Amino acid sequence: MQKIKIIAMGKLTEGYTKDACAEFSRRISRFYQLTVVEPKPEATPSDPSPAEIEKALAKEAEKIISEIPARAAVCAMCVEGKTMSSEKFAEYIGDTANRGVSEICFIIGSSHGLHDSVKRRADLKLSVSPMTFPHELFRVMLLEQIYRAGEISAGGKYHK
Amino acid sequence: MQKIKIIAMGKLTEGYTKDACAEFSRRISRFYQLTVVEPKPEATPSDPSPAEIEKALAKEAEKIISEIPARAAVCAMCVEGKTMSSEKFAEYIGDTANRGVSEICFIIGSSHGLHDSVKRRADLKLSVSPMTFPHELFRVMLLEQIYRAGEISAGGKYHK
Repeated sequence: MQKIKIIAMGKLTEGYTKDACAEFSRRISRFYQLTVVEPKPEATPSDPSPAEIEKALAKEAEKIISEIPARAAVCAMCVEGKTMSSEKFAEYIGDTANRGVSEICFIIGSSHGLHDSVKRRADLKLSVSPMTFPHELFRVMLLEQIYRAGEISAGGKYHK
Repeated sequence: MQKIKIIAMGKLTEGYTKDACAEFSRRISRFYQLTVVEPKPEATPSDPSPAEIEKALAKEAEKIISEIPARAAVCAMCVEGKTMSSEKFAEYIGDTANRGVSEICFIIGSSHGLHDSVKRRADLKLSVSPMTFPHELFRVMLLEQIYRAGEISAGGKYHK
């Protein structure tokens, strides 16, 4: 079974995102071996300067990069990344397995985004939407797309 | 206060989407006067033919169009629509008010999408993502963007 690891900065705090992530994780387990890790975001002042943000992102990047499994395909979620349909996303996951890469690692940044070093480390920068979503809701959206990819690849029926 | 009406085919059934929509509706009420109506989707066979889908969509379209308020700006959510950033979306809502249009009506279709007659009726076809989301989760995503638009227009701080 293909492995998927999600590195998501910060814990879920809202009840509905916890429920939704638990539900999609359960459904994903039919298709993929899923792991989720939640490194702690760096604290920043309430109105951080660009330098303070850069410093926090650099520290977060160290934590993130240390969590990336060896030989995993790395997919960083960023608003400026490549967009694709759910079907293409399912192909991306399937093609990765076909290339003999047994694990894909998805990275979701903190509220300040991702440091350039993480984006450079990624094999794919993927954008779900040009709109900005809160990172908790975004995690639900990504999990749902991973579940959908499993359903699409298995030829199942799963309506939007 | 600007009015926003959402016409969403079908009731919410999953607990987490009910909780999330309740939460974002509550937050939206600081900025907009929100109404949500949920016309009942047409029943279709489990493996409907294109003709059966077309027939169901046409009936749903009648229900949808009858719910569109007179003189409202109409925004149909469809995967092939125009994409925009959250900031541009906030501008769209604000500009609509500035043009003297006091209500915006967003339309979310059923699992089969929206009939062409609804798309033609819309002033704007808007796409959040080229990816397909379940319509319940999609409603959460739209409500979050409307709340975010309110925060952006009010100059508030609201992190992703």
